[in-house]
Amino acid sequence: LNAAKTKPNDLPIRLLGGALFVVPFAAFAWLGGWWFFGLMLAATGLATYELIGLMRKAGHTPSLLIALFTALIAFDVVVLPTISILLFAGVLGLMTTLALELRKPLDHTSSDWALAVSGGLYLGLTGGHLAGVRIFENGLWWLALTCTTTWLADSGAYLVGRSFGKHKLAPRISPGKTVEGYLGGIAAAVLGGMAVGWFAPFGPLGWWFGLAGGMLVGSLSVFGDLIESMFKRQANAKDSGHLIPGHGGIFDRIDSLLWAGVLIYHLHALAVWVTLL
Amino acid sequence: LNAAKTKPNDLPIRLLGGALFVVPFAAFAWLGGWWFFGLMLAATGLATYELIGLMRKAGHTPSLLIALFTALIAFDVVVLPTISILLFAGVLGLMTTLALELRKPLDHTSSDWALAVSGGLYLGLTGGHLAGVRIFENGLWWLALTCTTTWLADSGAYLVGRSFGKHKLAPRISPGKTVEGYLGGIAAAVLGGMAVGWFAPFGPLGWWFGLAGGMLVGSLSVFGDLIESMFKRQANAKDSGHLIPGHGGIFDRIDSLLWAGVLIYHLHALAVWVTLL
Repeated sequence: LNAAKTKPNDLPIRLLGGALFVVPFAAFAWLGGWWFFGLMLAATGLATYELIGLMRKAGHTPSLLIALFTALIAFDVVVLPTISILLFAGVLGLMTTLALELRKPLDHTSSDWALAVSGGLYLGLTGGHLAGVRIFENGLWWLALTCTTTWLADSGAYLVGRSFGKHKLAPRISPGKTVEGYLGGIAAAVLGGMAVGWFAPFGPLGWWFGLAGGMLVGSLSVFGDLIESMFKRQANAKDSGHLIPGHGGIFDRIDSLLWAGVLIYHLHALAVWVTLL
Repeated sequence: LNAAKTKPNDLPIRLLGGALFVVPFAAFAWLGGWWFFGLMLAATGLATYELIGLMRKAGHTPSLLIALFTALIAFDVVVLPTISILLFAGVLGLMTTLALELRKPLDHTSSDWALAVSGGLYLGLTGGHLAGVRIFENGLWWLALTCTTTWLADSGAYLVGRSFGKHKLAPRISPGKTVEGYLGGIAAAVLGGMAVGWFAPFGPLGWWFGLAGGMLVGSLSVFGDLIESMFKRQANAKDSGHLIPGHGGIFDRIDSLLWAGVLIYHLHALAVWVTLL
């Protein structure tokens, strides 16, 4: 609030502006239910729009669409019933850490906070899905499907790309990858997925899950790899770390697997939803 | 994965490194349960550590602690039972938007993405709590407690600060605020909260909720204001927007209310938990 900065002769405008805010606020609050829910959602959306505008003035170029999408999801997570203790920890953590940024020099506090929060969110959510795959009934088989398709997609892309690769897939980010390799990786993942599905105790439709998992992981897990490469390019780094000799860091090792975990997790959720499992 | 970049004579080291990763991975996967959960949590934590390291190399200074905390919460949200459709939308949105960053020039893609995600997360979660307060039984009274304490804290701080203010509260961020005003705002919020609690149908302990709400909102909602001021300082902007004449934007108007909504929401949750409501 900017009360302290307003000059006394602004008072009529201030009163009018206050009424413009308080009257609809009070009316929608009185009505309650979806009315107040809708008003708060609109206010949250407008505030997000303004926040992104402020960051653009500060020299960044964040996407309004991404911010509005995230705000919409986060807003609904609170209002619909959920696990209150984690929500409590999550939101208080978010607020506390942002408040702690107030102590620091102002030059790029909010971008540092944003990088920490969103980086942790990306790895925590994707890593959680990878752990979640093992908790399903027959979890070892679902995990085997996840790993087999990921590693075959990666090895298939490498081998096919080395022999037949001509067209670069993402020259700026990962110059070694080719379109031919990418297609070879999908084929390898599909074959490997169908093999796992054939042997797995997933019921008579098991190899369909293998086929679908192979298609999904084969075609999309490369994005986990490319995104990690994007972070490395920005840092001018070859590897994310040096934990594993000859393999770089853990992030290098699990980059594609993180995406595969999410994909197989939701393939399983879909199968449960349509009562195939 | 960096397979394509490795020279042929690295093969023994690559095989050893691969075994170092695959052997414990396979062993923990076989054991399942908390074993695999723990291994994945450790891997996620290490990958977060590496990601923050990469961002530091790129010239940012994100906090490892904030990133690890966020990763821990996000990881647990996935593995424990939750609302699958929002989780599905949330994680796929996070991955899709990050994948779309791959199209852009590399100079500050990840910080732009991070600002959009974390900005939307902050406003969505806090705004959702404000909407949630109205959904409680006697929601209008809980919302009245939220607004009364927030607005009295703000007005009390302004009036007391103007008359008795000597010591600056946060000179770099909001030069108009004083310690004396801050204490006056707490007193006003406590009195207002107790008055609402006295009249509200919260049962015989109602005015205790008012007292606690006034203390919480009076002492902490100013952070919502300061955090918004921090964003504005970075953008060299006076207001977040121009929607309300004389009052700036919506974010200016609801900055403290967002914090108050979260505080009252969880005060209510605590009261329900200890079966006072």
